[in-house]
Amino acid sequence: MISETQIRVRYAETDQMGFVYYGNYATYYEVGRTEALRQLGTTYHTLEERGVLMPVVELKVQYIKAAMYDDLLTIRTIVPDVPDRNMVFYYEIYNEAGMLLNKGETTLVFISNETRKRVRCPEWMQKIIKEADDE
Amino acid sequence: MISETQIRVRYAETDQMGFVYYGNYATYYEVGRTEALRQLGTTYHTLEERGVLMPVVELKVQYIKAAMYDDLLTIRTIVPDVPDRNMVFYYEIYNEAGMLLNKGETTLVFISNETRKRVRCPEWMQKIIKEADDE
Amino acid sequence: MISETQIRVRYAETDQMGFVYYGNYATYYEVGRTEALRQLGTTYHTLEERGVLMPVVELKVQYIKAAMYDDLLTIRTIVPDVPDRNMVFYYEIYNEAGMLLNKGETTLVFISNETRKRVRCPEWMQKIIKEADDE
Amino acid sequence: MISETQIRVRYAETDQMGFVYYGNYATYYEVGRTEALRQLGTTYHTLEERGVLMPVVELKVQYIKAAMYDDLLTIRTIVPDVPDRNMVFYYEIYNEAGMLLNKGETTLVFISNETRKRVRCPEWMQKIIKEADDE
Repeated sequence: MISETQIRVRYAETDQMGFVYYGNYATYYEVGRTEALRQLGTTYHTLEERGVLMPVVELKVQYIKAAMYDDLLTIRTIVPDVPDRNMVFYYEIYNEAGMLLNKGETTLVFISNETRKRVRCPEWMQKIIKEADDE
Repeated sequence: MISETQIRVRYAETDQMGFVYYGNYATYYEVGRTEALRQLGTTYHTLEERGVLMPVVELKVQYIKAAMYDDLLTIRTIVPDVPDRNMVFYYEIYNEAGMLLNKGETTLVFISNETRKRVRCPEWMQKIIKEADDE
Repeated sequence: MISETQIRVRYAETDQMGFVYYGNYATYYEVGRTEALRQLGTTYHTLEERGVLMPVVELKVQYIKAAMYDDLLTIRTIVPDVPDRNMVFYYEIYNEAGMLLNKGETTLVFISNETRKRVRCPEWMQKIIKEADDE
Repeated sequence: MISETQIRVRYAETDQMGFVYYGNYATYYEVGRTEALRQLGTTYHTLEERGVLMPVVELKVQYIKAAMYDDLLTIRTIVPDVPDRNMVFYYEIYNEAGMLLNKGETTLVFISNETRKRVRCPEWMQKIIKEADDE
């Protein structure tokens, strides 16, 4: 499953090097996976309402070319597998000229809000992702 | 009651103008009032554990001179009154040369975490602040 | 001149109170005025390219009701006057139900990137705003 | 070369999960390497003044246990090699109980501020790191 969304770089996100601060790509990835879930037919918000949180356990980022203030970026988010014990997302960020600026991946797990212990991906969510995958 | 604490400007907090991004002073004020409460003899953390949250209802900031990357800033926090229905903090931020860079104020209220409704400042907290004021 | 733009609240922007962190409204205001300038027919980016920076000298924020994660917010930005020695923006932030959550204002000045001294609003920019105002 | 520095988790850095937002560890790593350079006898600030910037080209983070609001964290920063074409930093973050919460690494390169092209680590900086390593 591949999803695309756009964001515009904010001044707040730049640093004195004149580039987007390297830590802010984590936020861009969050926007990417939020919109990916929405396009699949659910939301992360819904998941939390149903008592499941998805903390990130691993992050990898490769900085190829700097994003700049006011750039209109396309975040491409790839969900390679139906999640079970964890959920992996790949990300690619492009500028308006279609140049690949940045790529990375995150691994998230599922925890119960009540017990704060790890759980599996809820079945209803697996089903949504499988169905989206079949289309 | 007057409290002082120091922070060093992070690269993440600068923007491409080469200054600290204007929104980050709100975080510096948060550090100021957190340390003010600690010096009074309690912590904001304790307050939350006891079921009271303190959202900000008003913020004013005057930007006099820009703070720069790696500056060692002194945040001076003033608590003018014993809090009752709300709590006011004044802030002044100085650089190492003792120059006033920024000043502002925030008004916070007390809400119950359970009901999310406004409450008064807990009596134990008023007592701590009164005692600190008498010293 | 009144401009409207929409943003969706990011998880990164929330805090453990479950609300948008109070300092992040400054960033939302930045998005509001960036889009206001774009709708007027120029961009802040263009201004910087022409050697003029616009630091904020005053910020006021009133927090009426908390914005929450994944809320689709409308930022309404009002430019009350043609800028000369400074530029004032008013902001109002509404949720999807049309409820006013937050309002504030900023005053920005113009400085030369070269000298880092204050200058007046460039004439070409005054002209663009006057023309937009006449429409 | 191993360096340690402490920071206290700010409310701004938490998210509604009640943990430190995953993107903020990049900022903690920045604090770690800034203080590592200072302990070596130079500063990143000095490097920039001499016309060299150090953008990050790769970031890896492993989230072992969540850091919480008001935690006093120890950031341990390791410089495994004398930098040449790039500079690698390893990081470990511990809470007050000495528990390892987070570990990661960054690779940074050197670019000339003037040409924005890649350069080697300046000789004066290599010398400082070699000398610190010999002690």
